[in-house]
Amino acid sequence: MADPEALPSWNDGSAKTAILEFVRSVSESGDSFVPVAERIAAFDNDGTLWCEKPQYVQADFVIRRWKEMIATDPAKAAEQPYKAVAEGDREWLSHVYEHVPELIRGATEAFVGITTQAFEEAVREFFEFARHPSLNVPYTEVTYRPMRELIAFLEANDFQVYICSGGGRDFVRPFSDRLYGIPRERVIGSATTLEYRDGALYRTAGVEQPIDDGPGKPVHIWTRTGRKPLLAGGNADGDVPMLESARFGLLLRHDDAEREFAYDEGAEQALAEAKNRRWTVVSMREDFGQVF
Amino acid sequence: MADPEALPSWNDGSAKTAILEFVRSVSESGDSFVPVAERIAAFDNDGTLWCEKPQYVQADFVIRRWKEMIATDPAKAAEQPYKAVAEGDREWLSHVYEHVPELIRGATEAFVGITTQAFEEAVREFFEFARHPSLNVPYTEVTYRPMRELIAFLEANDFQVYICSGGGRDFVRPFSDRLYGIPRERVIGSATTLEYRDGALYRTAGVEQPIDDGPGKPVHIWTRTGRKPLLAGGNADGDVPMLESARFGLLLRHDDAEREFAYDEGAEQALAEAKNRRWTVVSMREDFGQVF
Repeated sequence: MADPEALPSWNDGSAKTAILEFVRSVSESGDSFVPVAERIAAFDNDGTLWCEKPQYVQADFVIRRWKEMIATDPAKAAEQPYKAVAEGDREWLSHVYEHVPELIRGATEAFVGITTQAFEEAVREFFEFARHPSLNVPYTEVTYRPMRELIAFLEANDFQVYICSGGGRDFVRPFSDRLYGIPRERVIGSATTLEYRDGALYRTAGVEQPIDDGPGKPVHIWTRTGRKPLLAGGNADGDVPMLESARFGLLLRHDDAEREFAYDEGAEQALAEAKNRRWTVVSMREDFGQVF
Repeated sequence: MADPEALPSWNDGSAKTAILEFVRSVSESGDSFVPVAERIAAFDNDGTLWCEKPQYVQADFVIRRWKEMIATDPAKAAEQPYKAVAEGDREWLSHVYEHVPELIRGATEAFVGITTQAFEEAVREFFEFARHPSLNVPYTEVTYRPMRELIAFLEANDFQVYICSGGGRDFVRPFSDRLYGIPRERVIGSATTLEYRDGALYRTAGVEQPIDDGPGKPVHIWTRTGRKPLLAGGNADGDVPMLESARFGLLLRHDDAEREFAYDEGAEQALAEAKNRRWTVVSMREDFGQVF
């Protein structure tokens, strides 16, 4: 059996056992052994490594910028997504999957034409003052402690751990090391297209295709690593292709209204597939001894 | 001074001294020290790490496939690039930069619809039998020994070394470890777009934008690492933006007709910029004690 001291914030149970057993099986000599070079793990970020409710952290970041843009140019409020922000229409903003084109256009417009360095400074500034609206702590403190332990445990067993976020790659990079111990070159995510000139990289109004969600996730993982993930973790329907492309799939279920949030919305397909494909479903309520 | 045993296949001279001195300056404490995490090196492949004459290695790979396609469907020979192959028009094929759209379309068509795994098998098969036409050795033996030593020396000084090829990323990956000791996740290059379905990745007829050449190189390096390169090495005009984005630029000059090939064609701008920007120009004739 694997190290009994591993994953201290996980309660004993089938999920913890399955993880420890899988990592042991690929690390020890035997039929299931996997060479170190092939031990790639990929984790979705929002809702898998940190809290995504009541809204994505990046949504808070972008909406603040939209408010500034509307203040400078009130005519912007005539169209979406600025209209919803100006009118405080949380309903419209919360239906992310119904408004993908408007939201993506707005997200690229918010920072179009600036350099990657200026964008990074904006991200750093945001993390300095912004706080989670209900947990009332800085966003740097809404990562899940058991998942941080899992990342460290995998690294200790010679896995290369990547973040594979449907959200912005360059939004996560400035803090990935501090949040998770994951260096910036191991952050995979969606991105605006960039243009190089005069020694700097400028954000354009375009979006890199495919977006790093759904079937785009295995594509991005291949692009970045040249491999399929050996282990993948997610929490939503957009993670299904990434999980099905991995040998070990981990699905985090948000069922802890007391300590975090309870919702299966947006994860219906993933939960159904979990049974068919024998993914390890992690109940936040039952498997997490501590959440944050 | 740095290790006098380093870079044994390099002749003593200003190029070797500049490299050793730069690596020492970023590795030792002092004003020029660079943290390990930021020590990114990026090298062009064709003509920088291995021989690109009389034609790109990948051109040999693709043209063999085009011949098979023409044999199956002779009507293909009516249009370029198949026409040039059918007619043995080396002149047309050698003017790569004048025929980029046709060549790229042909290169994607050659392997459209197959999986990344099937493509990798085709690459492996090619490297098993194909030989360099004039050096008369397998293509696995046309890498430059001094450059392999440089890669190893940088790795020994805690650099992360990436290949950044204008050619196909997935063409280089299967052999990057064997050729250069560079793992597949550190190969950056141009690529066809991929589609994920049913657990596999299929090559499509599209091309990932931007191509990993010229201003696309710093974009790809950022996309993959989240950083600018600290050191970059190239040999052609398409490497100029990558070299100018680096703190230390190395430009390999092909001036050794006896042991390799002598040509400045396609490197005119790079050679002019090298003076303005104080890049280290490496003369293959004078600085390489051994070439292969």
